[in-house]
Amino acid sequence: MQVYFKEFVYSTNEHLQLVDITEQVTTFVRECNIESGISLVNSPHSTTAIIVNEHESGLMRDILHKVQEEFSKGNSWLHDKVDDNTDAHLASSFLGHSKTFPIKNGRLYRGTWQNIFLLELDGPRTRHITCQVMGE
Amino acid sequence: MQVYFKEFVYSTNEHLQLVDITEQVTTFVRECNIESGISLVNSPHSTTAIIVNEHESGLMRDILHKVQEEFSKGNSWLHDKVDDNTDAHLASSFLGHSKTFPIKNGRLYRGTWQNIFLLELDGPRTRHITCQVMGE
Amino acid sequence: MQVYFKEFVYSTNEHLQLVDITEQVTTFVRECNIESGISLVNSPHSTTAIIVNEHESGLMRDILHKVQEEFSKGNSWLHDKVDDNTDAHLASSFLGHSKTFPIKNGRLYRGTWQNIFLLELDGPRTRHITCQVMGE
Repeated sequence: MQVYFKEFVYSTNEHLQLVDITEQVTTFVRECNIESGISLVNSPHSTTAIIVNEHESGLMRDILHKVQEEFSKGNSWLHDKVDDNTDAHLASSFLGHSKTFPIKNGRLYRGTWQNIFLLELDGPRTRHITCQVMGE
Repeated sequence: MQVYFKEFVYSTNEHLQLVDITEQVTTFVRECNIESGISLVNSPHSTTAIIVNEHESGLMRDILHKVQEEFSKGNSWLHDKVDDNTDAHLASSFLGHSKTFPIKNGRLYRGTWQNIFLLELDGPRTRHITCQVMGE
Repeated sequence: MQVYFKEFVYSTNEHLQLVDITEQVTTFVRECNIESGISLVNSPHSTTAIIVNEHESGLMRDILHKVQEEFSKGNSWLHDKVDDNTDAHLASSFLGHSKTFPIKNGRLYRGTWQNIFLLELDGPRTRHITCQVMGE
């Protein structure tokens, strides 16, 4: 069995933003030359999430709109006294910090309409997203 | 280490539906003859989710009702101009496309009240769900 | 490749509660002496979730408040006729029963503000949380 690990650095430029990271992740998986296994796309941040869906500009704006609607500012959150970003922490807790995919025939196995996104919830910030590949 | 992969095909018949896939998944895991490892249940679709909870008919209807309530149609979503199913994409993004389980003593390790469901969000459709088993 | 499995038992004392399990999980991962791999933190219960975020007392109360707000009691859920805890099952279904982390340089790879929590949704109860470590 082999394990590979890579870090990707992204500089987000909006407060709320979807960054499509599919290309880097799938390229890395191909380069690992693993026939079968899994790929773990992971964010070590507590104000981001990793989500998977279609890359269509309207939908991407709908997703951001839905996130903003569900996790809104100004609800007298206690953490806002420490750092004014409770909404971002809540969205991150609910949406999750990582996603796992199968690797099959040397490729990350995903559907035609499944792109992988870093969801920035408290930007602009520099974010370090990792991809781990494990298999043989 | 060994890696096994299987695809299950389901034809859903409702727009919003829970399909219990526990039996197929756990049977496949047993057949793999892996003592310890992990099992990744994965959907390559962007308008489905994989969720885990109790198989009780009332609860299953409650879950669908909650999904419908949280991800409702008719909010002037931008993606609805492309394809009238933004609600399904949003639910899929929020609920996730895969679930991971331990394999212990040759069995998928789950609780008594943990069944595995394909959540159809834009049916009726034909869905291909995969189960990957990795371990030794 | 090696696979290790450990169960941690927690007795929760509130109906809704966050239990920080980071210390036990990270200690176990270190003890496994795995250089690279993954760690799967898993709950076999259908009225708990595993979530990842910052351990700040205000934020922890905000998370519980948000959970209560999103998954409220008294909505004439059908499952309440069987067992008066539909809200807990819904939150568990939506938030997820497990979280996966990379293992790098012998340590569970997580951010400074990423702690691992058992989210009790129907306490007080005794909960069995497992951590599986896989790698080499």
